[in-house]
Amino acid sequence: MHVFYTPDITSNHYTLNEEESRHCSKVLRLTSGDIIHLIDGKGGLYEAEITGMNKKNVQLTVINKQTEFGKRNHFLHIAIAPTKNIDRLEWFLEKATEIGIDEITPIICDRSERKIVKEERLEKVITSAVKQSLTAYHPKLNTATSFAEFMKQNVSGEKFIAHCIEGDKPFINHLTQANQSYLILIGPEGDFTQTEVDIALQNGYKAVTLGNTRLRTETAALAACFEANYINR
Amino acid sequence: MHVFYTPDITSNHYTLNEEESRHCSKVLRLTSGDIIHLIDGKGGLYEAEITGMNKKNVQLTVINKQTEFGKRNHFLHIAIAPTKNIDRLEWFLEKATEIGIDEITPIICDRSERKIVKEERLEKVITSAVKQSLTAYHPKLNTATSFAEFMKQNVSGEKFIAHCIEGDKPFINHLTQANQSYLILIGPEGDFTQTEVDIALQNGYKAVTLGNTRLRTETAALAACFEANYINR
Repeated sequence: MHVFYTPDITSNHYTLNEEESRHCSKVLRLTSGDIIHLIDGKGGLYEAEITGMNKKNVQLTVINKQTEFGKRNHFLHIAIAPTKNIDRLEWFLEKATEIGIDEITPIICDRSERKIVKEERLEKVITSAVKQSLTAYHPKLNTATSFAEFMKQNVSGEKFIAHCIEGDKPFINHLTQANQSYLILIGPEGDFTQTEVDIALQNGYKAVTLGNTRLRTETAALAACFEANYINR
Repeated sequence: MHVFYTPDITSNHYTLNEEESRHCSKVLRLTSGDIIHLIDGKGGLYEAEITGMNKKNVQLTVINKQTEFGKRNHFLHIAIAPTKNIDRLEWFLEKATEIGIDEITPIICDRSERKIVKEERLEKVITSAVKQSLTAYHPKLNTATSFAEFMKQNVSGEKFIAHCIEGDKPFINHLTQANQSYLILIGPEGDFTQTEVDIALQNGYKAVTLGNTRLRTETAALAACFEANYINR
């Protein structure tokens, strides 16, 4: 099953861009009459036939369309401090896309060793996972923002901050229920500072634990992603 | 906090091997009087003082010992088909060790593209995660075995096979409860064959789903690991 990401599809006729056309003809060796699948990232899953092709463009005709394919019953937004080793953040994006996530925001925290992220690269990782896992809804990746700026944003739904500072913290599933909109903050290597935690609490975030074991940043973020999806089975 | 893995510790006095001694003195620049932590992999977490050192060995004296540190309330064994790209299996081993797992067996299935795994390398990945996540119990990695051979093994506890073949399959948490011993089979890229599934069912395994999304092998295995730990919170 060959899947292409076509966010700009608007009718039953579509032409793959030059790069994907080359991939389609040269790498996959597909030809007129072959069937491929398209994902528009907004819930649309299309079955399309190759009706014409040359080296630089492949023309498609949609023969079947499903809307709201794999529509999710909740909204999950995870704000995560980019890992020092960017591979670990990319890994999280791939896995979270497979399991189910709607929005991701890289947040730069006091203890963040990495202050800059290349969104284009991360976007590619997400799109590749979208195609591989046949996720018709493309998760939204926001540009990186400072923790302070992020706190000023007006977010609806339930807000949680997962940190490792000593103290009694409930699990997320003890504080919420299914079919909600969730925002979960995940700190950098070295955790959030007490000040950041206090600011979050003042802004209506609830402190939560993800378990008793020491989790790396990207593992904690994925555990939070698993948990939100688990609550919504 | 500097953690060393010392599975052969038997008394209150211990000498790090040459490699770890060099790491301790040259890389970490630790010296006599400094405190480090030791994990024996069987639940023992030690606090030890450096009481003597030279280039080739660092002598330690245990000043505090905790037994059954982070003792788990269930037993989780995951048998997983090694991924074509071994990095993905290594990634699973690291993450599963962080989240909580007791035993792992690489199983070679009909559709396995990778038939050989280097256990020594995988063992190193687990040990590194054990130290990083302060897991006093070292997960056991078995040597790779064929699916057929694995089916002949007499396993106690609850047995599940997660596959993607069409049909009604319950979630693991609908078939079991907390504080059990679980064995979960995860297939290769391309899934188990119908024959393998049938053989597993004949051997008392129950077919389960891990959700509606298409998960890569290593993601499915981690989802199963997360679920077993979630059930046992």
